[in-house]
Amino acid sequence: MKRIGVGLLGFGTVGGGVYKTLRSQEDVILKRTETLFEVRSILVKEKEKERSIEGVQPLITTDFDRVLESGVEVIVEAIGGTEPARMYVERALEAGCHVVTANKELMAKHGVQLERLARHHQVQILYEASVGGGIPVLGTMGHFLKANRVQRITGILNGTTNYILTRMAREGASFEEVLAEAQQKGYAEADPAADVDGFDAVYKLAILCRLAFETQVSVQQILREGIRDITPEELELAQRLGYVVKLLATGEQYGEKGPVSLGVSPSLLPISHPLAGVEGVYNAIHLEGDVVGDVTLVGRGAGERPTASAVVEDLSNLFRLPSPKLPLSDSMLLPAGEAGGSRFLFMKLREGEVPEPEKLRQKLERIGLEVVDVVSARGGVAFILRRWDPSYTSVVVTELGLELSQIVSRPVQGGGLCQEQQPEMEGVV
Amino acid sequence: MKRIGVGLLGFGTVGGGVYKTLRSQEDVILKRTETLFEVRSILVKEKEKERSIEGVQPLITTDFDRVLESGVEVIVEAIGGTEPARMYVERALEAGCHVVTANKELMAKHGVQLERLARHHQVQILYEASVGGGIPVLGTMGHFLKANRVQRITGILNGTTNYILTRMAREGASFEEVLAEAQQKGYAEADPAADVDGFDAVYKLAILCRLAFETQVSVQQILREGIRDITPEELELAQRLGYVVKLLATGEQYGEKGPVSLGVSPSLLPISHPLAGVEGVYNAIHLEGDVVGDVTLVGRGAGERPTASAVVEDLSNLFRLPSPKLPLSDSMLLPAGEAGGSRFLFMKLREGEVPEPEKLRQKLERIGLEVVDVVSARGGVAFILRRWDPSYTSVVVTELGLELSQIVSRPVQGGGLCQEQQPEMEGVV
Repeated sequence: MKRIGVGLLGFGTVGGGVYKTLRSQEDVILKRTETLFEVRSILVKEKEKERSIEGVQPLITTDFDRVLESGVEVIVEAIGGTEPARMYVERALEAGCHVVTANKELMAKHGVQLERLARHHQVQILYEASVGGGIPVLGTMGHFLKANRVQRITGILNGTTNYILTRMAREGASFEEVLAEAQQKGYAEADPAADVDGFDAVYKLAILCRLAFETQVSVQQILREGIRDITPEELELAQRLGYVVKLLATGEQYGEKGPVSLGVSPSLLPISHPLAGVEGVYNAIHLEGDVVGDVTLVGRGAGERPTASAVVEDLSNLFRLPSPKLPLSDSMLLPAGEAGGSRFLFMKLREGEVPEPEKLRQKLERIGLEVVDVVSARGGVAFILRRWDPSYTSVVVTELGLELSQIVSRPVQGGGLCQEQQPEMEGVV
Repeated sequence: MKRIGVGLLGFGTVGGGVYKTLRSQEDVILKRTETLFEVRSILVKEKEKERSIEGVQPLITTDFDRVLESGVEVIVEAIGGTEPARMYVERALEAGCHVVTANKELMAKHGVQLERLARHHQVQILYEASVGGGIPVLGTMGHFLKANRVQRITGILNGTTNYILTRMAREGASFEEVLAEAQQKGYAEADPAADVDGFDAVYKLAILCRLAFETQVSVQQILREGIRDITPEELELAQRLGYVVKLLATGEQYGEKGPVSLGVSPSLLPISHPLAGVEGVYNAIHLEGDVVGDVTLVGRGAGERPTASAVVEDLSNLFRLPSPKLPLSDSMLLPAGEAGGSRFLFMKLREGEVPEPEKLRQKLERIGLEVVDVVSARGGVAFILRRWDPSYTSVVVTELGLELSQIVSRPVQGGGLCQEQQPEMEGVV
């Protein structure tokens, strides 16, 4: 039996969850890995705050040096954000400690450099909890897709926005109403920007794509669109066309070492797509490999226990599994919005205006757009277009006499046009 | 760079797929694992058969000893069935070779003994491809659920039956019609028993449960019911009640080291369940861990490429990852049918008989059954009952004046009674 000393940085939801999970799972972990993890110190900001967990008080300190001196081989970083988390993680690695973190912003912005630093000091840095909560997606890519080239990733990576969109679609409620209620219940932050404007999903996509495409991306380069402008009317019309609207993170590589296109934006998925039924706070990642085909992983994307689970699984694996080697290269980044493909176009009508879907369809066709399907309701008209590029926005506005605020367009993902998916069998027997 | 000699046993769909995949992915595997896998010999039954793959002929042999003498460190077993596969695998392990196999029957029936033999000779035996095709479910359980106690597994583990049920539900076609067409197209075997009678799923469930519950089960102990008696009427009525019918493999453990209940049978899932939308040849596994909550893995369950992918991923991992340690114990096995819980009851009407759902409901309630919901169509009446045990079958038949062949009952899985699932948020922010 090995005894491993652990230093915890931060004792909020994640830190507290890790502490409790290490206790409740101690026997299982010991039996299966012959390792006993002992929390030897906990770094907090306010030493005097009352802690509900028994036995914790003697471990609490506000001094990072004391954590490093408490006989620890691993630091669990559960502070969040970039500073001071980054400084502590660097110092831990330099001191020869392994690091496990749930910090997506840190790993998206400084992951490459931190992994280099870890390698230099012959320690590991693991961060499964930073993407998809309890879903072992980084482990799957790092260990079970070694012989596959990942060609495309499509993910629902933010639970708060998925929860809001799910409730808007079910109840016909507005974004503002659902957000306000979610905030009241503590399901969304007082400042919801990180979630609803897509920053959180962008961080996670940057991490995923580093592993999937072995390429470096800076978060500023990733297209980012949030969900604030989505209306229940839009959701309803999309549904009548056979689609659901999700905040999707998508990454695609065109050929090995080829250019990469990355983006986070509200997108349509055909109802038959494996991600279409992922509701509420669930997260999911759809991976396409060149041999395996598609694999989808679904699970709880956040919350104390799923996140703590991922951190503690990482802890167990620090001393069991090798670090996935990442020979990173620089790939050309294509702007995600320009990728073409089919498109959902939603036109909000003016107060009292009567929808004239057929007339609008003819107008769109006259300017060269191919309309695959159209539906309308009191508040608006929605189209599925076979092809689209961003330059069409101004053409549509001008030719149809609309204001820019009246139209929204969304990419259609997951197999392009909605069609009855045939069950396939390829050499099954 | 390491060079690893590989001996292939069998050169059918799986063996051929492995050979081709090792070639097409050679550069990726080399780059990521610094290992070059070279097929040095291929064991076949008929040496003279023509092979379409170039360069293969000089490797072909009908003599297993020649394979062992060809400088191999790994044997890939792709013959299927128990004999002679078992004998070859034993001899390979005894000769100090690692083994990778896609053989579910072999690993279900003799896996415990083969793993012991492997450990004794300090080699590994990996078999990811034996369950769920390209889905890395064994790897996930072996490496990413070390700190979790798995409490329940629910799986769609057989692609052929899922394909048949999907088509029956979509087209209202009978089992016989869809099966005949599937056989004609080569999607189902001439003798379909292994698939449609549930043997294949039982093998896979036995393997999964060994890993999940760390317990030995013999395949004979697992409840097994196939899909031959399912009618399109039954599927339609289930759907109208808010459920889908799937051939589900379920395993549940009641407390750590507690009794285990295992079964394969047609079962109902609420439409909102993560497995309900898994259609066609897709397989999926829903895992419930005590910390992580539920994780669902979905992918192609069979076919040349997904299976070859899993085998080649195993090959890469032989020299990278440690064997998961399995401290097996013997658990009490509960008969799966007796577990109680809610139940779907379908009554086929006699020719010309008019459905009288309300009258039947009253009769069922008079004998003590609580009817939650009822629907009827020309061919039959279907009920959701809150509780059921097998003894009710004969009571229902007697009291309602039916013949035994007129009633079918199925367990309702995945959260019991169908209800609008609320999106949950637990400490998300």
